[in-house]
Amino acid sequence: MKAQKGIQRSSIIPLYYQLLEILIDQIETGLLKPGNPIPSENELCRTYGVSKNTVLQAIKTLQNKRLVYRIRGKGTYVMDPKISQNITTLLSFSSEVVGMNGALKNKAVEAKQMPALPAIARHLGIKETEPIYHIQILREVNGVPLALQTSFLPAELCPGLIDRPFDDGSLFKTLQHRFNIVITGVNETFQAVKADNYEAKLLSIAPGDPLILLERHSYVEGGRVVELVRTLLRGDRCKFNIELKRDQQQEASLVNSAGNRT
Amino acid sequence: MKAQKGIQRSSIIPLYYQLLEILIDQIETGLLKPGNPIPSENELCRTYGVSKNTVLQAIKTLQNKRLVYRIRGKGTYVMDPKISQNITTLLSFSSEVVGMNGALKNKAVEAKQMPALPAIARHLGIKETEPIYHIQILREVNGVPLALQTSFLPAELCPGLIDRPFDDGSLFKTLQHRFNIVITGVNETFQAVKADNYEAKLLSIAPGDPLILLERHSYVEGGRVVELVRTLLRGDRCKFNIELKRDQQQEASLVNSAGNRT
Repeated sequence: MKAQKGIQRSSIIPLYYQLLEILIDQIETGLLKPGNPIPSENELCRTYGVSKNTVLQAIKTLQNKRLVYRIRGKGTYVMDPKISQNITTLLSFSSEVVGMNGALKNKAVEAKQMPALPAIARHLGIKETEPIYHIQILREVNGVPLALQTSFLPAELCPGLIDRPFDDGSLFKTLQHRFNIVITGVNETFQAVKADNYEAKLLSIAPGDPLILLERHSYVEGGRVVELVRTLLRGDRCKFNIELKRDQQQEASLVNSAGNRT
Repeated sequence: MKAQKGIQRSSIIPLYYQLLEILIDQIETGLLKPGNPIPSENELCRTYGVSKNTVLQAIKTLQNKRLVYRIRGKGTYVMDPKISQNITTLLSFSSEVVGMNGALKNKAVEAKQMPALPAIARHLGIKETEPIYHIQILREVNGVPLALQTSFLPAELCPGLIDRPFDDGSLFKTLQHRFNIVITGVNETFQAVKADNYEAKLLSIAPGDPLILLERHSYVEGGRVVELVRTLLRGDRCKFNIELKRDQQQEASLVNSAGNRT
């Protein structure tokens, strides 16, 4: 059997991985469309001159990456594309989802007052054991649970918030309209983590599935942090966009002293 | 047994998850330090008034989140913190790592010329089957494989690049110094994915472990995309920081017409 059409037998990269890249490319480019079947295993063997094992491994990997799904006895189909969030502008999650024409629903998991744990207190710049609000909600778009979000806020800043936290559609807007707290900037950290049993159950995924953990500090004019938010987003449904531009100063610092950055 | 110290039996949130949050908090706040043991199972049972099962589940979850590691017969220890990348400025990966005082090593996995696949061609704004360079490298910091990076560049832009792609320490700088290609902006997409067998092997992790997939388009003055980079970063070792500030215009658009964002 002779490898062909973009498959290089001499490459150090495994055949299944090369086939995988080709199939991902065809999904991305729209040659293989969401909801449509991908070619049969036999067809892929013939087209790319690879063994059935290689094809199966590539398809299995596509499945693991949630790019295709299998219907037993029918075939393998291309998954709908991920929901994409643009994070170049400072907008709350719900505004972004509204912009994507999705029907967002917030489901409260829990809203309570509790004493601040030490790290939370440090994040919020308050004393340990000072009362905070702990609000955990599940965010659904078009009926699909997408994100599990836990917010921590100093209770004294927004007394009574937990009774009706989403009056204005989002916490972000409720803070602004009801408490006149205008968030002027955020600091965010992203990482990839595994879902544990509790998180998986709420998000309707399997334990161990990949999640994006987004940790956000929101601050007001003057720099006071008014909110710490930990959001777990389903890796199979969400991605983020960032646009970065280099200005002259950064360029100079890059060229001249990249090693001295702190 | 009475629950205590931040554990609320009446809460809808499972006990192990509450204990987990407390332990994560203590790791974050430095009360539990990297390399030091966490309290024993019996001690945790006593301190928080929870069962051994609850403690074991919390510790297991800490392990899955790679916040602690277990040494059989000795105890459970706090993991070193993740390497953090700041992406508010446009810098190449190696500059960032240099800034973190890590010893970066690039290991070439493969560098070859090949015809562009359709989606790659579209990303790069070139014709299908036009020659591109395909450079796959493994990035190690202090001997630990951290990222698997695959770059795609139009071959005609940088003839001969694949012979010595890292002459100046990074592809980014090589492009600038040897080919006078100055990248002025990038567009990035982040998502969380599972490692497959090939990726896991190269990155010394287990198949299924969470990775951040960073897809970057780099462009020059005028907007031409000169490079597409797909980087897979180990979820247990990397995180990203972003700082966003709201300007007046964005604020107005948020308050007045959040629903009309496209």
